[in-house]
Amino acid sequence: MVLVRQEIGDVLRDFRLQKGRTLRQVAGDASVALGYLSEVERGQKEASSEILAAVAEALDTPLSVIMGEVSDRLAVLEGIRVGIAQRVPDTVPEEFVAGYAAEMLPR
Amino acid sequence: MVLVRQEIGDVLRDFRLQKGRTLRQVAGDASVALGYLSEVERGQKEASSEILAAVAEALDTPLSVIMGEVSDRLAVLEGIRVGIAQRVPDTVPEEFVAGYAAEMLPR
Repeated sequence: MVLVRQEIGDVLRDFRLQKGRTLRQVAGDASVALGYLSEVERGQKEASSEILAAVAEALDTPLSVIMGEVSDRLAVLEGIRVGIAQRVPDTVPEEFVAGYAAEMLPR
Repeated sequence: MVLVRQEIGDVLRDFRLQKGRTLRQVAGDASVALGYLSEVERGQKEASSEILAAVAEALDTPLSVIMGEVSDRLAVLEGIRVGIAQRVPDTVPEEFVAGYAAEMLPR
């Protein structure tokens, strides 16, 4: 089962690391307990909407951007946007797909 | 403060109504108490990730689509995509913005 909290946690951690900030800094700015934020990032706790808003603000990232990234990652997990082969129409012969995939791979 | 649960609730209700289904039907399919689902739809309760997944499946709608719609609505609330005037670059004179806005309005 695909769990939204797992993706939210991953996205929050990735945005935090992208900004070069520590758990302690973001937890402090968001007035959230460090252990709690850590559990949220690891997908072990559901973040309330209030906590999400506070962490988004501490990360200086709009909630819409965070949830948009969550949506994109869920789509990948749901197999809507996976691999090269699945983006090629069904009618294309398998040899072509294999050749195309080989071309796209680093040599 | 923008609350994610409010948008999630609105989106779940809108998708349910779009599919012409009742609260009772969706709650039954998702094995969720009717009163609980009703509170989630009204933004009064946070839905756990397990409940969200079950309701998404009951609505036959991928979680990525639900969260994508949530992200879009959050963006509107955050004022990232509002009105004509705010989409016009800052350097455009006000008279032009007013003229453009007037042109876009129904007569």
